[in-house]
Amino acid sequence: MPISLRELAERFDCELIGDPDVIIDTVGSLCNAGPNALSFLAGSAFKKQLASTKAAAVIMRADDAQSSPTAVLVDDNPYACYARMAAVVCPGPVFKPDVHSSAVVATTASIAKSVHIGANAVVEDGATIGENTYIGPGAIVGPDCVIGDDCRLNANVTFVRNVTIGDRCIFHSGSVVGADGFGNAMTPEGWIKVPQLGGVRVGNDVEVGSNTTIDCGAIDDTVIEDGVRLDNLIQIGHNVHIGEHTAMATACAIAGSARIGKRCMFAGMVGMAGHIEVCDDVVVNGKGMVSKNITEPGAYASNFPIEPVRDWNRRVAKIRRLDKLIERVSKLEQDAK
Amino acid sequence: MPISLRELAERFDCELIGDPDVIIDTVGSLCNAGPNALSFLAGSAFKKQLASTKAAAVIMRADDAQSSPTAVLVDDNPYACYARMAAVVCPGPVFKPDVHSSAVVATTASIAKSVHIGANAVVEDGATIGENTYIGPGAIVGPDCVIGDDCRLNANVTFVRNVTIGDRCIFHSGSVVGADGFGNAMTPEGWIKVPQLGGVRVGNDVEVGSNTTIDCGAIDDTVIEDGVRLDNLIQIGHNVHIGEHTAMATACAIAGSARIGKRCMFAGMVGMAGHIEVCDDVVVNGKGMVSKNITEPGAYASNFPIEPVRDWNRRVAKIRRLDKLIERVSKLEQDAK
Amino acid sequence: MPISLRELAERFDCELIGDPDVIIDTVGSLCNAGPNALSFLAGSAFKKQLASTKAAAVIMRADDAQSSPTAVLVDDNPYACYARMAAVVCPGPVFKPDVHSSAVVATTASIAKSVHIGANAVVEDGATIGENTYIGPGAIVGPDCVIGDDCRLNANVTFVRNVTIGDRCIFHSGSVVGADGFGNAMTPEGWIKVPQLGGVRVGNDVEVGSNTTIDCGAIDDTVIEDGVRLDNLIQIGHNVHIGEHTAMATACAIAGSARIGKRCMFAGMVGMAGHIEVCDDVVVNGKGMVSKNITEPGAYASNFPIEPVRDWNRRVAKIRRLDKLIERVSKLEQDAK
Repeated sequence: MPISLRELAERFDCELIGDPDVIIDTVGSLCNAGPNALSFLAGSAFKKQLASTKAAAVIMRADDAQSSPTAVLVDDNPYACYARMAAVVCPGPVFKPDVHSSAVVATTASIAKSVHIGANAVVEDGATIGENTYIGPGAIVGPDCVIGDDCRLNANVTFVRNVTIGDRCIFHSGSVVGADGFGNAMTPEGWIKVPQLGGVRVGNDVEVGSNTTIDCGAIDDTVIEDGVRLDNLIQIGHNVHIGEHTAMATACAIAGSARIGKRCMFAGMVGMAGHIEVCDDVVVNGKGMVSKNITEPGAYASNFPIEPVRDWNRRVAKIRRLDKLIERVSKLEQDAK
Repeated sequence: MPISLRELAERFDCELIGDPDVIIDTVGSLCNAGPNALSFLAGSAFKKQLASTKAAAVIMRADDAQSSPTAVLVDDNPYACYARMAAVVCPGPVFKPDVHSSAVVATTASIAKSVHIGANAVVEDGATIGENTYIGPGAIVGPDCVIGDDCRLNANVTFVRNVTIGDRCIFHSGSVVGADGFGNAMTPEGWIKVPQLGGVRVGNDVEVGSNTTIDCGAIDDTVIEDGVRLDNLIQIGHNVHIGEHTAMATACAIAGSARIGKRCMFAGMVGMAGHIEVCDDVVVNGKGMVSKNITEPGAYASNFPIEPVRDWNRRVAKIRRLDKLIERVSKLEQDAK
Repeated sequence: MPISLRELAERFDCELIGDPDVIIDTVGSLCNAGPNALSFLAGSAFKKQLASTKAAAVIMRADDAQSSPTAVLVDDNPYACYARMAAVVCPGPVFKPDVHSSAVVATTASIAKSVHIGANAVVEDGATIGENTYIGPGAIVGPDCVIGDDCRLNANVTFVRNVTIGDRCIFHSGSVVGADGFGNAMTPEGWIKVPQLGGVRVGNDVEVGSNTTIDCGAIDDTVIEDGVRLDNLIQIGHNVHIGEHTAMATACAIAGSARIGKRCMFAGMVGMAGHIEVCDDVVVNGKGMVSKNITEPGAYASNFPIEPVRDWNRRVAKIRRLDKLIERVSKLEQDAK
């Protein structure tokens, strides 16, 4: 949507340095922006790119503004400011309220008038869908699911059953919510299945990535609080509880009954054992293994970065010979007496 | 389903301590159970919760029974006993035999009378589906798949082709069975695809989690024996063979032609290299890396637990200076001569 | 398709040792091949199996040929030769051009005559599909996607929007391409979503495994070059760039804006941090963590293989006591002065 720099600056309460009548109609990275594009400078690593950008205007902090060859929108948090402005300049696809003729909606489901339900989607018995919610093609809303307003379930999302989500939530394609948790009891004849009878409760403003799975609770519910962000291919086990505004990058796996505080940030491939607890404001680096309670906020890690195989193998060999090194030191100590 | 404690005790051959006429109509965790609920005490960690539970009755071992403020059902394996009783008290959703009008079933497919096929599901040429099996909405049963009795393929499951499963198997939403394995041959012009021509054979009583993938064999079949349990987001490569009653937690990845014995238990995020073998009764801890044959039953591990980043970085730095430490010890030894 | 050894040898320019009139009509592993089957000897580890094989003919290198009890097709690269011959002997399923009556194809989509669109598939506005391409049942081709010739999107694949792929690409079931990347800006009120406005561009001859996810770019596109091979359950973040003929095994996770060169090979469960670069011809061993730029071709690793838990725990304990060992050595050095 074409918009002048004046209007952007006014609407988002930014200082503007440059011609207020310039019209923006797209966004661009500093490298590839065209002459009508808005861009942003998110860190000093990108300053080199700023010098040669062709963008019409760049959002940045005040102390970077002098060096810019472009018009500048000044903001303390350029990335967040860009996020808000980009949503205006390049609004997402609009949909019209409609239930596609090929969609199958149970007569006992309750669907708000403004809902869009895509081709070959299925809404099962007792489901409820709020205003302005988009259900993509091939998506399944299982029995007794409750979906709030302004949500988006993209193509081929599956809500299995008994899932309740708030408003403004986004679930990306292939995500599966409310499937049975992994509950098995060992007997002399082998495993027997423990019925998984709980649901999943998700707050407002939650976003869940492609092919991520969130299991239903075994008895009580699995809970995802407001503002949580989950990337793709994450596993959330049964009865996990995730606090507000916690974010996890791709391929994390959280075992059953784990409890994670507010505002935590897990990098990719973090694993967390079941029945343990992480307090608020904990950061775990990529591939970290959380195997006991964490009670102090802060940053944690347990991964080795890669090295050339020969160096790595030598390192492992040395670790394996630590026994002998310890013996040699003990002998030296004794001989020294 | 409402049921008296007397009937539960008789049916599952438990000793009952308490009023046999009390009616149970739901289950609950010790913390949240209501006055008509059945609960269980699975370990001493939960004894504190027992003291204040509002459950009507709790399943536990004989030696815990004295301290209970509730009626008690005595069993040596409370969790397994709970699993069996919960399936009676809270039976799963029932379905009626039916092929939904929007489902597409090939005329060459053979479907038992008692099968349920959900909305927008697809059953392709030559597929066979046994009695009392449930095919969820959006599920795909590909060409020549054979599905036994009393199975459940939930919403949006995909059986690609040439998959044969036994009786009483459950596949959760988004799981993909029988897709091509990862077979590529390097040539000077790049990779060429190796045709993946085998199938997948699954025994009885197998449960497979959401978004888990089990590839077809390259030539011979991929084999999953009776009673295997796979959690969500697991990868089973082509020609893998998994023995009876082996269980894997979330996000394990098993490379092609790996062979895993009976009754093994892999915790989450375990990786296993291809063309190697693990014997029966092996336990691998979370994030373990199985890169060579394991021939002795027992528990194995290779993961470091997380620490504060500063501590961890110091530890890594020390490991990196092991060379120098070894040199210093050698010099001391020489000087001591 | 039945074919004589003479014809195979001529067509693929191999030397044949044995009866040229023998008819091959299937393929088999050395272990399980029947008397009309073609097999191959890919490495010396399989020589034992060769001695007892019942295959009609085996593809192998010249220097292995003398010891074979079967007819031999001689080739320097037996695995690649097998791949090519198997595609002739056991051609994949054929499909006939057809749009199934239950499929939903937007009137603004442009579909070549020879395309097959399966039951309950959906093709949305503005999509383009080239000649001889197969769209499986339940697959979704989102708005403005462009698909080349001779491609295969298997059952329940999702192309979300704005995905462009070349010719001869294969996407396996459950893969999701073009979903929003993980873009979030922190504010005092919590995360806000950064609009994900780029697309995904995929070259020719690319194969993508089941339940793998490839996110759209944030502003510019995510790029997968010609001949790339991705196994199952892999995550490719927004704006990642993967060079020609690079292959990744299962469960790798590549964070946003990572750049990977040509002909790289990542084993399973490799993680790569965002905004870094790996040069051409890099091999990373299973579970490796790529957290900084790699500028030299070669093989890299950072994983410990599993050990019995008791041994492993001792090793970790020793590493944790390295501080003390270093102190003891320092004391010895001082005392020696």
